[in-house]
Amino acid sequence: MTLNEAQIIGALAQIFGSNHRGVQVGIGDDAAVVATGEHTVMTTDIAVEGTHFNCQWSGAFEIGRKITAANLADIYAMGAAPTYLVVALTLTGEESMEWICELAQGIKHEASSCGAVVVGGDLARGPAKVISMSALGEVDKVITRTGAQVGDLIYLSSLPGWSAAGLACIEKGELSDLESYAAEEFRSPTLDYAMAVAFSHTGAHAMCDISDALVIQAEQVADASGVQLVFDPEDFKASEEFGQLSELAAGAGVDVWQWIFAGGEDHVFLAIGKDLPGLCVGVVKEGNGVRGLEMKKAPETWRHFS
Amino acid sequence: MTLNEAQIIGALAQIFGSNHRGVQVGIGDDAAVVATGEHTVMTTDIAVEGTHFNCQWSGAFEIGRKITAANLADIYAMGAAPTYLVVALTLTGEESMEWICELAQGIKHEASSCGAVVVGGDLARGPAKVISMSALGEVDKVITRTGAQVGDLIYLSSLPGWSAAGLACIEKGELSDLESYAAEEFRSPTLDYAMAVAFSHTGAHAMCDISDALVIQAEQVADASGVQLVFDPEDFKASEEFGQLSELAAGAGVDVWQWIFAGGEDHVFLAIGKDLPGLCVGVVKEGNGVRGLEMKKAPETWRHFS
Repeated sequence: MTLNEAQIIGALAQIFGSNHRGVQVGIGDDAAVVATGEHTVMTTDIAVEGTHFNCQWSGAFEIGRKITAANLADIYAMGAAPTYLVVALTLTGEESMEWICELAQGIKHEASSCGAVVVGGDLARGPAKVISMSALGEVDKVITRTGAQVGDLIYLSSLPGWSAAGLACIEKGELSDLESYAAEEFRSPTLDYAMAVAFSHTGAHAMCDISDALVIQAEQVADASGVQLVFDPEDFKASEEFGQLSELAAGAGVDVWQWIFAGGEDHVFLAIGKDLPGLCVGVVKEGNGVRGLEMKKAPETWRHFS
Repeated sequence: MTLNEAQIIGALAQIFGSNHRGVQVGIGDDAAVVATGEHTVMTTDIAVEGTHFNCQWSGAFEIGRKITAANLADIYAMGAAPTYLVVALTLTGEESMEWICELAQGIKHEASSCGAVVVGGDLARGPAKVISMSALGEVDKVITRTGAQVGDLIYLSSLPGWSAAGLACIEKGELSDLESYAAEEFRSPTLDYAMAVAFSHTGAHAMCDISDALVIQAEQVADASGVQLVFDPEDFKASEEFGQLSELAAGAGVDVWQWIFAGGEDHVFLAIGKDLPGLCVGVVKEGNGVRGLEMKKAPETWRHFS
């Protein structure tokens, strides 16, 4: 069946249609018009089939959720709450209307869980599926990467590594319950948005999303703040999940620290401050760079452009 | 030469760096933080190599300008002024740093001409170059497609058709001055942003950008406003450019009305109201749909998903 643009846009407009009171003009005009405050947080993400998602491993609903979560995490990481999203999509022309609608439902599901709405988009034909999303958020007190202070403690919203563990499991045949859990975290990670809000409300001095990898983003915070971040691997072991992740790593023949420090795609929040909630994993000292995240082999840090 | 992501981001951050007073947090954190008003206009566009641009026909600077212009036109078409942009880019890995920087310079050039700044972005590897852009704008009085009233007149900011004419010329060897002008309009259209502002200031009741094609977008305005748009082809002939465009069409063996009514990619503004500036091309009547834009053959309306 050949789909035309008008049919697809019609279906998407129906899925994303809302009566959100902040939306003055929604889908269907040249642009949307939305209510905003004095300061607005803005971010964009682009995900490519084969690089960021794989239709053989993940359903359209999961892909929609995951990409939306990545975008929303960047908003939360600034101490903000997401409000509006626009979605630009390239399709190969071979997708079914069902696949496209499930993708949209996944996007809507994740956005709704944060009180955000899709207010516009664009559609084009291309050689691969590409999903680009931009999000706005509203913020009272902005939390950047520059505010870490000597004497602060380092916190994580949860133990990273589950997405990498899931990727290692996903191509196996029969999965154990634990492996299935990890595979689901890879397909569509569960983001602890509430913990980002809690970090903000308890006065975090600096915050970021560690979706590239803890080791990379810790370095960025250290650089931006002009301090040294000293992690203690023993503190990670205090997490209830450490034993489970270690079990999976042993089964896969992988060093568990590789997943925790350099796995990527976890969307765990890293926060720095005093008396914050979450998993305390280190302290901020004078100096520069990061200590305590050493691995047996170098992480594949810039994997999209190696 | 193999480029890594950090090098590219470093170069782009330098090109897009600005001291714009509205930018509280710019490139380099999880998201940007910008000053906004009570209402914000938001739009997104995605352009794919091979579908929307062709590196054999256009330089990177021209491609950057053209895609940015398409995005900014949607903001102006709402009666708004563009403020901030984010750019998401997929690259194949075969681009030179020079090409990437020229693309960024083209984006910056077009944005700067409207007082807008790039405040963030994302970069990924993919099977083709894809450029996705989202823009914000500030607005006092929103102009949608719904406001056309019976008795209003129909205006265009200029004669459409030049981009289609340019596409017809671009593969020829030697070009006349007129053909070269058209080819440039295809590669990097000159947008009359000032005319969109003038339409807004003179009280346009409805406005849109006709980048898909006049015949398509006139229909959308008629539907949205619940009126009939009656165009008079004789009025188009009053444009000084009509003779030149007709000359090119005759040379290419094409019906000139095909270019004017259905050429696409022109980013001419269509405005409806009373005593507006620009080219007056028709009247608004009771009824529905569009009259006066009949062509000898049906336009390739939904060309991205035919």
